[in-house]
Amino acid sequence: MSTKYVYAFREGDASMRNLLGGKGANLAEMMRLGLPVPRGFTITTEACTRYYEDGETLAPDIRAQIRETLAGVEEHVGKKLGDPDNPFLVSVRSGARASMPGMMDTILNLGLNDEVVVGLAKLTGNPRFARDSYRRFIMMFSDVVMDIPRRLFEEALEEMKQAKGVELDNELDADSMGELVDRYLAIYEENKGESFPQDPHEQLLLAISAVFRSWNNDRAIFYRRQHGIPASWGTAVNVQEMVYGNMGDTSGTGVAFSRDPATGENVLFGEFLINAQGEDVVAGTRTPNPIAELADILPEAYEQFVATARLLENHYHDMQDMEFTIERGKLYLLQTRNGKRTAAAALKIAVDMVQEGLLTREEALQKIDASSLDALLHPTFEPQALAKAKVVGRGLPASPGAASGRIYFHAADAEAAVMERGERAILVRLETNPDDIVGMSVASGILTGRGGMTSHAAVVARGMGRCCISGCSEITIDVDGRFMIDAHGRRYEEGEWISLNGSTGNIYGQELPTVDAELTGDFATIMDWADEVRTLQIRTNADTPHDAATALRLGAQGIGLTRTEHMFFEKERIFAFRRMIVAENEEVRRQALAEILPMQQADFEGIFEAMAGLPVTIRLLDPPLHEFLPTRDDEIAELAQALNVPAAQLEDKIKSLHELNPMMGHRGCRLAVSYPEIAEMQTTAIIQAALAQSAKGYTVVPEIMIPLVSDAKETAFVKDIIVTTADRLIAASGRELDYLVGTMIEIPRACIIADKIAEQVSFFSFGTNDLTQMGYGLSRDDAGRILDDYYAAGIFDTDPTARLDEEGVGELMQIAVERGRRARPDIKLGICGEHGGDPSSIRFCHRLGLNYVSCSPYRVPIARLAAAQAVIEYGSN
Amino acid sequence: MSTKYVYAFREGDASMRNLLGGKGANLAEMMRLGLPVPRGFTITTEACTRYYEDGETLAPDIRAQIRETLAGVEEHVGKKLGDPDNPFLVSVRSGARASMPGMMDTILNLGLNDEVVVGLAKLTGNPRFARDSYRRFIMMFSDVVMDIPRRLFEEALEEMKQAKGVELDNELDADSMGELVDRYLAIYEENKGESFPQDPHEQLLLAISAVFRSWNNDRAIFYRRQHGIPASWGTAVNVQEMVYGNMGDTSGTGVAFSRDPATGENVLFGEFLINAQGEDVVAGTRTPNPIAELADILPEAYEQFVATARLLENHYHDMQDMEFTIERGKLYLLQTRNGKRTAAAALKIAVDMVQEGLLTREEALQKIDASSLDALLHPTFEPQALAKAKVVGRGLPASPGAASGRIYFHAADAEAAVMERGERAILVRLETNPDDIVGMSVASGILTGRGGMTSHAAVVARGMGRCCISGCSEITIDVDGRFMIDAHGRRYEEGEWISLNGSTGNIYGQELPTVDAELTGDFATIMDWADEVRTLQIRTNADTPHDAATALRLGAQGIGLTRTEHMFFEKERIFAFRRMIVAENEEVRRQALAEILPMQQADFEGIFEAMAGLPVTIRLLDPPLHEFLPTRDDEIAELAQALNVPAAQLEDKIKSLHELNPMMGHRGCRLAVSYPEIAEMQTTAIIQAALAQSAKGYTVVPEIMIPLVSDAKETAFVKDIIVTTADRLIAASGRELDYLVGTMIEIPRACIIADKIAEQVSFFSFGTNDLTQMGYGLSRDDAGRILDDYYAAGIFDTDPTARLDEEGVGELMQIAVERGRRARPDIKLGICGEHGGDPSSIRFCHRLGLNYVSCSPYRVPIARLAAAQAVIEYGSN
Repeated sequence: MSTKYVYAFREGDASMRNLLGGKGANLAEMMRLGLPVPRGFTITTEACTRYYEDGETLAPDIRAQIRETLAGVEEHVGKKLGDPDNPFLVSVRSGARASMPGMMDTILNLGLNDEVVVGLAKLTGNPRFARDSYRRFIMMFSDVVMDIPRRLFEEALEEMKQAKGVELDNELDADSMGELVDRYLAIYEENKGESFPQDPHEQLLLAISAVFRSWNNDRAIFYRRQHGIPASWGTAVNVQEMVYGNMGDTSGTGVAFSRDPATGENVLFGEFLINAQGEDVVAGTRTPNPIAELADILPEAYEQFVATARLLENHYHDMQDMEFTIERGKLYLLQTRNGKRTAAAALKIAVDMVQEGLLTREEALQKIDASSLDALLHPTFEPQALAKAKVVGRGLPASPGAASGRIYFHAADAEAAVMERGERAILVRLETNPDDIVGMSVASGILTGRGGMTSHAAVVARGMGRCCISGCSEITIDVDGRFMIDAHGRRYEEGEWISLNGSTGNIYGQELPTVDAELTGDFATIMDWADEVRTLQIRTNADTPHDAATALRLGAQGIGLTRTEHMFFEKERIFAFRRMIVAENEEVRRQALAEILPMQQADFEGIFEAMAGLPVTIRLLDPPLHEFLPTRDDEIAELAQALNVPAAQLEDKIKSLHELNPMMGHRGCRLAVSYPEIAEMQTTAIIQAALAQSAKGYTVVPEIMIPLVSDAKETAFVKDIIVTTADRLIAASGRELDYLVGTMIEIPRACIIADKIAEQVSFFSFGTNDLTQMGYGLSRDDAGRILDDYYAAGIFDTDPTARLDEEGVGELMQIAVERGRRARPDIKLGICGEHGGDPSSIRFCHRLGLNYVSCSPYRVPIARLAAAQAVIEYGSN
Repeated sequence: MSTKYVYAFREGDASMRNLLGGKGANLAEMMRLGLPVPRGFTITTEACTRYYEDGETLAPDIRAQIRETLAGVEEHVGKKLGDPDNPFLVSVRSGARASMPGMMDTILNLGLNDEVVVGLAKLTGNPRFARDSYRRFIMMFSDVVMDIPRRLFEEALEEMKQAKGVELDNELDADSMGELVDRYLAIYEENKGESFPQDPHEQLLLAISAVFRSWNNDRAIFYRRQHGIPASWGTAVNVQEMVYGNMGDTSGTGVAFSRDPATGENVLFGEFLINAQGEDVVAGTRTPNPIAELADILPEAYEQFVATARLLENHYHDMQDMEFTIERGKLYLLQTRNGKRTAAAALKIAVDMVQEGLLTREEALQKIDASSLDALLHPTFEPQALAKAKVVGRGLPASPGAASGRIYFHAADAEAAVMERGERAILVRLETNPDDIVGMSVASGILTGRGGMTSHAAVVARGMGRCCISGCSEITIDVDGRFMIDAHGRRYEEGEWISLNGSTGNIYGQELPTVDAELTGDFATIMDWADEVRTLQIRTNADTPHDAATALRLGAQGIGLTRTEHMFFEKERIFAFRRMIVAENEEVRRQALAEILPMQQADFEGIFEAMAGLPVTIRLLDPPLHEFLPTRDDEIAELAQALNVPAAQLEDKIKSLHELNPMMGHRGCRLAVSYPEIAEMQTTAIIQAALAQSAKGYTVVPEIMIPLVSDAKETAFVKDIIVTTADRLIAASGRELDYLVGTMIEIPRACIIADKIAEQVSFFSFGTNDLTQMGYGLSRDDAGRILDDYYAAGIFDTDPTARLDEEGVGELMQIAVERGRRARPDIKLGICGEHGGDPSSIRFCHRLGLNYVSCSPYRVPIARLAAAQAVIEYGSN
């Protein structure tokens, strides 16, 4: 039996979403519920796939099924496509599995031609309406199907209005509309070299093909990538009888939500226009009325709609977003879908629906998009001030939050402003580098002129929970001149105020008051419910006591990653650290390390204190040493002078540390092998800090983590340094102290030999940033151009550095989990890469059976919810 | 029962090599054969491991076993350690599983002290002999066990000889020797602050510990790394009764091989000294006599030795390297082992022994070290000229062979010298880069001042089979000044002659005649036998018709890798190629590609022609495009002018192509995704070249290979470009042409999803260079320092980029093989990384069940033999 590619609405239901798309499945479902839905049929998503397989053609068997199903519907409604006396007119709309509003194309009034328009005029007694409909159809068809610029038709309409001396479209009379139809047909012919297709069946097949093609227009590809929708899903096409809201004062059209999508309040929310088509609402030429007013104008239809909204919400157990048309007093439902909502509304609706008995707690948790919580966790601008503020530039929303501050163009200047003068600062740079870390950490926000969502600035800022806008090419930044010029040409000197919205990428040329996140009420309720359900522990990546405290407030159960390298960038230390790096022998290196030790110990004491006994994982030094060295000539000269060596000699040393592929170079535990004294100093700082805490009565069990291991002997070598150092200190202290030694698993080979590594260590923490880079052989720093080309070619749907690649990298993790547990059944398994804060990746980690995920502080609530959703979806582990 | 750590010789045999070491096992075996071997015992390699586990101490149970076994041997020989009246004197020598000649330490005459020396003098009636023995013992013990500089003792000996007015050691009389003993004892005390240990049992335990320690001296570590011997094996220690060749004219000592180790001729080959100890032979103060002369001096001992040599050779089925001592007319065997031999000798001995019925063909094949063939395949210097030549510098033997030529310091100069003036050239650079490729390919040899065995120069030269010495810091190279200064201070201007031996790293400051390799006779016989046995196909990596022809002559069965990028560096093309790279749009790019097409097609025609119908695998463009661009300001200016764009604009373009980690950047099939037109052009060149061949009546089945794939859709995308282009050309030609599409497997993720990739392609070729780099997260370009530290720390025994890491990278390959075959049972599997020419890696590839290995032309015979050895060792697949 051949595949069924076309379903009449009465043949489908809501469960067939993957095949019929969301719109088609819901139209079918509404029909099953006995709601007034115009008749029609759906061409499936499989037909879309087939369309592409067949080289963008509609196969004969699909055409045949369309013809056949159409005939059935025609019989049902008693009208015929192309019959001037009783014409069947249809809309042709896309409808994918996941809602992609506005991304694909729609054609209305299909079935009109030179004859039918005359019949329609007769039938409705309204020639103006008939011609207007035909005119609109010609324009949409030309634009969508034939790629004729829509602008040509809009210009013709403008000319006609000028010629007739009217201002609004609906002031044009029937004759003018007729003239316009002729003009439109002429434009078509001028552009295509042939006349407008008069056969409605041909129109229909062309329109269906065009909708399939629109699945791969640039907008749709971009939207899919943003939302992680696979290109392979394809779109369905819905062909539905036209109903008209523009047939006079008892007709109208509108859109409404069953609850307020902004606040979540349980009131019908929406708007309508009398005597209008959907397009007119969108065009914004007339101002729609609030939905409640419909009660006065068409009370019967209104009552029916209110009841329908209630019925649909109860049926779908979710807030509905509905489109309706009233044709001569009769209500038609054109669409229903679960409504998009703000994060705050999502929480309120979920909590309310549990109280109303519409949802169980678990169902309520599943209704919330975990990622959306992000918006609630960061400060936001005070809405009234924001409403008056002007956007002076736009960049990439690299790290969410809202921040105001005075602009500084050098990290040191920002640091001085904040630390010495108590200002709020925004650090503005062309791009940031590790030298800027301290400046970035004290700034309220970061703005860069170059770099993408995964640039240094973006990654570090997200890690710190600092608001950041990256890659803003609209603003000209002159770092040396210490000024910038915004998109409108205004010049800002150092010290002037700007504000950044890191969630939208908008930049404002003034100070704006911010409002802190509110973490009580519905938010707290949902978090409580999630915590009851989830089995994954949620830890945080935190490098400072401040970060640790933030994460604790947001529900973190420990620290999964403290990077020790950022601490070295602080002014006092960087000199000692640089002296250590360029040391010509171990003795000089040890002297420099001895200076760093007390500072590093104080850092760890601060973090242990903030975490009050919760587990803290500290990673030994990871980045290549050359990252810490100066690059500018004047900085090198300064350092050389301070070290009392010739600048040329220092330059040679710096050059000798240069690497062709630093990502795969002398870093991670390789540093500990070359310079055991660094690992020794860091272990000393950790253990002494823990002993100091234990002297105060806290029990701290530090977890010391070795980065970048790829070999069992290498692991043993570094572990030996740690254990020897730690045991000596503990014995000398006369106290008891437990500590764990573990490794990052971030090198493909480490996954493969995980059993041998597990014999050495108590825990693994997956570093999926590096594992993804090495697994793909793709450097994140260099991936921008490559990813763009891969999206365009339809090879990648999402960025594997943002969403964990389950098929490849995930399988490497799976291998590591199996082999690691085989060798050490009680090994503790976690993840501390950026994926640890991505809901889809968290669900995968749950399925893998990890013990915890660790993410940046502001993503902790997201992780808590995602972990609960994983249990609900896949069961507990 | 506790472990047995000590074996008397009579308890062992040759099969116990892993436990007793080679020397100990063979001494035991000789004893079993009834040969005259001085008594003794072996402390096992396991005791060595235990020694290190116990923190470099000899455990009480091991000490007890030594004491006990010693007592048994003493009883047997009727002498006692430390008994002045009948002293048992012993040698203490290392003896590992694999022979490591001279790498570890030896102590002779142990058991002597102030009393025993007197007894020995009485017993032998030879006070001079007794005191000389004691003196030697003190020196060796002080040096090896106590780390007192040997120099101090040698100086004291010199002083004594001057004081006594003699020239040779053996001119010193008994009294002088007595004085020397006192002086030596004094030196000991001065240095250690205590007197020389008089207890022979204490001497013995200290000596054994010292030999265990010598397993980890720098020499031994270096040797192990060179020969791939794991540090975990440990060494055994042999304690054996001393016999003395220096007891007068009926005593003597010697070393002999059962066949000539240089030529393989079946004659006893060696030398001896009358009235001497082994040391004296080594010291070179007296010239030893050829072994045949022993027949005249001590005919009985000689006959016995000749018979013994024959017996041992027949017993071991291999040429033996034996040490013997004759004490007062009585022959003792001190050691036998399979003798080291030249590659030529190895071939002759193997072939001869088959003819003599001593070995089967398969056994004969197993006797030859495949790697050693390398020395036979390259030209060598004419021996007599070489004997007179002076080494003027030494570097790393980066690529074998011998070459003479005039020096040039820039690739373009070398190219001009060779191509325009017909000279032979040696390219001398500080380091090479891809720009130098053409110069390297026309040069007879390459010398670099920096970079290791895996530097660009080394890798490319090996790939080309071009002689290369890298990292020669002894010679000062001034590239800009166009001169160099050798290790002796002589200055060479451009155009002067030097000669390079890439097999040894020696550099000669003159022209030297070379002799071509002889590939007939025994070599051909062995190759024939190997071909009968092996199941792996052997292909070659060849980029030019010349390389292809060389490989064919050496037995290649096809080309496994043709890199298409080197072709682009030729003068005429590089401009068109650069124009392609910096093109701002596809149209300009296509114009440039159209210029390149005929040249590229001609390349492929040349290669197809050379291979005469054998399979040829051609890889699409792989390196990142920025590698092709100029870096020097003047070159950029020149290119800008030629392209008619401002230099600043071109510079910006070049900068924009810069990558932080180019190894993981925009290269491989990622280029084909971004610029399908490049893959299209290359496919066109390949298919048209094959069609041209087929017009001449050859059947060529080109295998088009996609590099760096990591994703199934990516593979499909590039495959689609190839297939569309190829099928169109074939159809247009009206001819029939088969071609295959395959991929490199060189990214870890590709191994993991090999089943999905296999659905798309007909063959996989493992690119183990990149797979090793990505698998370890270790950039070969940056690994030098890291590897040195890893060897020193005992983490790595060998360089994983040179010898395939079976545990990790090999397991990734295994996964890919399994999954690939599961999806496509008839998929063709090969390897084309540098590992394809390494015998141990070839054995692994055989076990993996690959269909072929591909290696550089000069490694083809090595691969043929190694593949046969794999079948013999592991069975056929």
